[in-house]
Amino acid sequence: MNRKLRMGMVGGGRDAFIGAIHRIAAHMDGLIEVVCGALSINPEIAKASGEDLFLPADRIYMNFEEMITKESRLPADKRMDFITIVTPNFAHFAPAMMALDHGFHVVIEKPMTFTFEEAQQLHQKVQETGLLLCLTHTYSGYPMVKQARAMVTGGVFGKIRKVWVEYPQGWLSKLSEREGNKQAAWRTDPKKSGKAGAMGDIGTHAAHLAEYITGAEITHLCADLNALVEGRLLDDDGNVLLRMSNGARGVLMASQVAAGEENALKIRVYGENGGLEWAQHEPNTLLIKWLDQPTQILRAGGNYGDRLSSFATHNCRTPGGHPEGYLEAFANIYRNFALTLTARINGTTATPEMLDFPTTKDGVRGMAFIDNVVASAASDVKWTEYRI
Amino acid sequence: MNRKLRMGMVGGGRDAFIGAIHRIAAHMDGLIEVVCGALSINPEIAKASGEDLFLPADRIYMNFEEMITKESRLPADKRMDFITIVTPNFAHFAPAMMALDHGFHVVIEKPMTFTFEEAQQLHQKVQETGLLLCLTHTYSGYPMVKQARAMVTGGVFGKIRKVWVEYPQGWLSKLSEREGNKQAAWRTDPKKSGKAGAMGDIGTHAAHLAEYITGAEITHLCADLNALVEGRLLDDDGNVLLRMSNGARGVLMASQVAAGEENALKIRVYGENGGLEWAQHEPNTLLIKWLDQPTQILRAGGNYGDRLSSFATHNCRTPGGHPEGYLEAFANIYRNFALTLTARINGTTATPEMLDFPTTKDGVRGMAFIDNVVASAASDVKWTEYRI
Amino acid sequence: MNRKLRMGMVGGGRDAFIGAIHRIAAHMDGLIEVVCGALSINPEIAKASGEDLFLPADRIYMNFEEMITKESRLPADKRMDFITIVTPNFAHFAPAMMALDHGFHVVIEKPMTFTFEEAQQLHQKVQETGLLLCLTHTYSGYPMVKQARAMVTGGVFGKIRKVWVEYPQGWLSKLSEREGNKQAAWRTDPKKSGKAGAMGDIGTHAAHLAEYITGAEITHLCADLNALVEGRLLDDDGNVLLRMSNGARGVLMASQVAAGEENALKIRVYGENGGLEWAQHEPNTLLIKWLDQPTQILRAGGNYGDRLSSFATHNCRTPGGHPEGYLEAFANIYRNFALTLTARINGTTATPEMLDFPTTKDGVRGMAFIDNVVASAASDVKWTEYRI
Amino acid sequence: MNRKLRMGMVGGGRDAFIGAIHRIAAHMDGLIEVVCGALSINPEIAKASGEDLFLPADRIYMNFEEMITKESRLPADKRMDFITIVTPNFAHFAPAMMALDHGFHVVIEKPMTFTFEEAQQLHQKVQETGLLLCLTHTYSGYPMVKQARAMVTGGVFGKIRKVWVEYPQGWLSKLSEREGNKQAAWRTDPKKSGKAGAMGDIGTHAAHLAEYITGAEITHLCADLNALVEGRLLDDDGNVLLRMSNGARGVLMASQVAAGEENALKIRVYGENGGLEWAQHEPNTLLIKWLDQPTQILRAGGNYGDRLSSFATHNCRTPGGHPEGYLEAFANIYRNFALTLTARINGTTATPEMLDFPTTKDGVRGMAFIDNVVASAASDVKWTEYRI
Repeated sequence: MNRKLRMGMVGGGRDAFIGAIHRIAAHMDGLIEVVCGALSINPEIAKASGEDLFLPADRIYMNFEEMITKESRLPADKRMDFITIVTPNFAHFAPAMMALDHGFHVVIEKPMTFTFEEAQQLHQKVQETGLLLCLTHTYSGYPMVKQARAMVTGGVFGKIRKVWVEYPQGWLSKLSEREGNKQAAWRTDPKKSGKAGAMGDIGTHAAHLAEYITGAEITHLCADLNALVEGRLLDDDGNVLLRMSNGARGVLMASQVAAGEENALKIRVYGENGGLEWAQHEPNTLLIKWLDQPTQILRAGGNYGDRLSSFATHNCRTPGGHPEGYLEAFANIYRNFALTLTARINGTTATPEMLDFPTTKDGVRGMAFIDNVVASAASDVKWTEYRI
Repeated sequence: MNRKLRMGMVGGGRDAFIGAIHRIAAHMDGLIEVVCGALSINPEIAKASGEDLFLPADRIYMNFEEMITKESRLPADKRMDFITIVTPNFAHFAPAMMALDHGFHVVIEKPMTFTFEEAQQLHQKVQETGLLLCLTHTYSGYPMVKQARAMVTGGVFGKIRKVWVEYPQGWLSKLSEREGNKQAAWRTDPKKSGKAGAMGDIGTHAAHLAEYITGAEITHLCADLNALVEGRLLDDDGNVLLRMSNGARGVLMASQVAAGEENALKIRVYGENGGLEWAQHEPNTLLIKWLDQPTQILRAGGNYGDRLSSFATHNCRTPGGHPEGYLEAFANIYRNFALTLTARINGTTATPEMLDFPTTKDGVRGMAFIDNVVASAASDVKWTEYRI
Repeated sequence: MNRKLRMGMVGGGRDAFIGAIHRIAAHMDGLIEVVCGALSINPEIAKASGEDLFLPADRIYMNFEEMITKESRLPADKRMDFITIVTPNFAHFAPAMMALDHGFHVVIEKPMTFTFEEAQQLHQKVQETGLLLCLTHTYSGYPMVKQARAMVTGGVFGKIRKVWVEYPQGWLSKLSEREGNKQAAWRTDPKKSGKAGAMGDIGTHAAHLAEYITGAEITHLCADLNALVEGRLLDDDGNVLLRMSNGARGVLMASQVAAGEENALKIRVYGENGGLEWAQHEPNTLLIKWLDQPTQILRAGGNYGDRLSSFATHNCRTPGGHPEGYLEAFANIYRNFALTLTARINGTTATPEMLDFPTTKDGVRGMAFIDNVVASAASDVKWTEYRI
Repeated sequence: MNRKLRMGMVGGGRDAFIGAIHRIAAHMDGLIEVVCGALSINPEIAKASGEDLFLPADRIYMNFEEMITKESRLPADKRMDFITIVTPNFAHFAPAMMALDHGFHVVIEKPMTFTFEEAQQLHQKVQETGLLLCLTHTYSGYPMVKQARAMVTGGVFGKIRKVWVEYPQGWLSKLSEREGNKQAAWRTDPKKSGKAGAMGDIGTHAAHLAEYITGAEITHLCADLNALVEGRLLDDDGNVLLRMSNGARGVLMASQVAAGEENALKIRVYGENGGLEWAQHEPNTLLIKWLDQPTQILRAGGNYGDRLSSFATHNCRTPGGHPEGYLEAFANIYRNFALTLTARINGTTATPEMLDFPTTKDGVRGMAFIDNVVASAASDVKWTEYRI
């Protein structure tokens, strides 16, 4: 295949937040071009947004049904290869299912669906169609997160005893949903966001990170969810005790009322011999702690011979000291998806490093996490078994 | 009074850890001299340890009973003013009670006693005798902890919503109590340490810090305590969900199996308008976070006019940039105790800053914390009401 | 104009370092597409590299002369708009001049030319043709560098007294140019790199940053340049005392033998009332120091109302806490160049924020810096006047 | 010897800064007691200050001559063992000489004397009398500075190529000497402070640190000294290029007009294989950087077996994570002086660790540094040979 992959976009019109991020991530490595879009349910915004992206008029669609239908009728050397869905949570499922039914691969913003049941159906559909679905759990795209996973699952620290993952933000410290903040409005509205607020929006990221790095699964949890801002309809803060399948105990914290915090996702993992610490605000650094040796500062792109995992180096574009960030982590997910899809089209074999992007399996667990954490929060019993 | 206060010491002989720390703290400001001691239950060590301290032979005692009895018979201008008790937890109560009964003031290492009941009796005895008892909850002696308390209780951040306090150490990552480590041996022995391991040793510090800074009390807790090192008799790791009397939700974590961590006590508090973060490893810095302004770095001794509380400046010895540490925090407790005692002896009034040291009230809450957290850990019900 | 700008590339074939960076930077914002290239002087590499970029066979050229000639004959709606030159220093001038002569705009990697005289000619040519030339002094593309410039030149700190800029790297700590390291080989070869080694490669970045942030110019310097690795032909380490046109004194340090350092460019500026500190390794943070108030942590994308300059916010893609890095800083230069060029094509007005990218004026000063610092290093007199 | 050492103090009365620091440092380890003092040239302050220290009335002296004379007549088991001199620079020499002439050992605040010639005489006197003179170059008392010295002089990093030492403070950013600031007044007055301002006050610390850690000597320097605050009589800012006896090149910066900085002494040393970084603001951390391995964080009191030098561990009082600071570094100098003096009195052998405190040799070099740096600043020639 001697061409870029062709992407169509659902959602992500002017003023949307995450849509623009997806486009940067898709563009960055020169492997993907945006060829069409159904960018807004408002026709005028849809049209203007398409023009912003230099889309030809006949590929600016008014809704996803039109886009999928018309694109599927285009010749193979012109029609989109996959769609990216960046609508609010409640509007993920329908376009994803329709796209798969029409033979298009899918990239989808997390949480994957509105309900756990939808997630299961989508997972089933992917299995049936054999198509690719990529879920953009951004934080697993960071090279030092991949390094962390390689070290923990490789047994470097011995048996894992403890996992602490925290995700404080402060941007919902006021009742912004009543003050015209659109991002706040849909995220705190149970009809658009789902059963959970902060736990769905960012708690799922934290849970995914904990499971991704440890290669273990949450088996039991004990949740305390609260709406700490008066008048809020969904949880804006939560603390959850964890038990994991590897025997580790843990804590997961997610808050959107930690006033003054930006986006401070951080994880610490401890085993018998040492542990690690990674913080999203300084993502190129991974602290490696040892029981009886000095802490080491591992850096993305570091000049350490083969000390860095191939999963870390594969996801770096620059040598050490040229900081890559959130957009590159996001782009790593797109890049791995694109490399895997290209390999499939070309009939070659995708490497394990290429295949390392989140899929419906992660999406199903993400929706299950929401259900389980909400069930636990409603229970007076300490430990709730994680059901899926 | 134109003299140093005279201190007698119970415990703290050669090779003891915390006894040497107490002496440094007592000596630092030139307000206290060690005049006698019952430094070990081993007579030879007691004698040698007394000589290390340049004590006269007749004031090196073989046990606390002898010391208290004989000192009480010395003339007023010679006998000790107070005793400091630095024995393992199970041996705090008896010398403290006897000292108070003989008219001596007391300084005592935390946790105050072996059981909650002893703590209550000691508190009662202090009330009856009118003598001073000072509990060395070291971390409340740091100037920036006092600054944090002043700001939080002064309402700077509005209503407090969230408290996160964590205390990871790694030094018990192996079963060191079976390998000749004396510090590990008594701390993990229920007969010497009490009901709780890590929660008693360091969890109590974390709980005290959270209550000290917020001026609020823990009202409910949900604890998960574990002995993560096989063969250990007491908890070496715990995670506790908190509800506090000011409506805040919180998490308290204490671990002695966080391999590679030193003594990483840290607290974060968030209110409506902002919050703060303080870490013991860099104790001269207090991060002040705001909802809509840049984070500020407050520094001990900082040149900010009256922006620093008098409680912070009273507890600094140096201008900004001359780092004070753990020993100075410890010395602040001794210094405030000494200034308060001197004021009492002189018939003058101790200022609020001088009076700001932990007492039996804190000790009773500390022992109650241990009881409550152990009770919660044993319960299948999510929330345990904090009883005292 | 309803299309992406079309870029042709000179240099940057397989295994080149900076060429790949330029492409990522050009692609990221969806404003530019690479349409042709003369990617290597080796025909096979040129061809393979072009295929990597999905270029059509007839626009993979064998050298820049062919590319410029043939592209200039293409219809206006197809031919490239500008060329990007990413060859070693000695091969910048010829393609730049030829491109300008044929009516193409130019993006060029720094240092702009091989000699000061070439720089002057290129500057003259740009004046004559009225075309755009953009010089990729990457570090001036960071939003917090732009914030620093806005604050310093806006007088926030009063008269500036001191500038410290340092740029330590460690990658030339061994004689790597003799061990097959291609990057090392041309950079340490006077025939390819020019008069200076580290001072040309990274010292020019440091000098540009100091002048960009302060809005002042170096007027005198006192340089100590050394080749600290035995056998090296050009300086690998240098320390330079500075006097600046605003009266400030300063130090500029550049080293490529600071073993263990990555790419640790850092600048500190102090004025009468306070100062600032910015480090490339954590580029989203700008420390603001005050004479009598706590230090503030300004963050890219921070939620501070209008406290951040429009030059900072214009160059951010994400809200605070979503770290942007080196590639985004690089992309900011491309994006501003693209917005300016698009405005020119459309006959609209570019804003000051768009126009804020380095040009031949910066390139001329960069080459003058090299000449002046080398002259000073050769002199026994303390101060050398900066000539241009 | 079964007693504390007895110290007499010259200077350091109420409101003096450094005198109180010396007392804390002397008291901390329980090895020294203050027995007498000539604490102020103002008799009332002298008396009141002596009472603050609980000195008996007959050992509160009105001037150093009286103190030395009368103490020398006291019986051996009562009279002071040594004097500590904490007066302004111009008043160091006379009491030091007289004390040595009367058989008393000496502790003296740096810079050792007012002129280089005095320093030479004092050094000569110490040689003649065989008494101890300890110079309180505080920063060499930090355990991680000693660790740095052990590693660099032990050859861990190979040949040393580069030394960067910087010491920014901001407290003289205004003309405070005219606004009633006594500390500022004498330090900026050539009659009391000497030839140099910032270079004498803090530049000497930086120079000492560079020579102490590297075990090498400055051989040539090129200085730019300036009084950046209008009306100031002595330098308040300086930048100095260095050549050292081990072939290393370097930079030394000292400023008291770096507005917003506290006391930010920092040093970086680079050799063939790696380097180190130490900053006084976080003194318990030493960064160890390697050419091809991850950076390590060495911590004072760290649990690394014998990886820490005996010189580092000897100067720690607490295990890792219990931060020691400026006062403990200061106390280390007193403690080593006291242990050495006690060994001498007892006829035992002081260990190399005990003997590791600054003496007149350091004091002579400190005064020579001032002379040389001032000479270089006055010269138009680039390099001034360091003469002593």
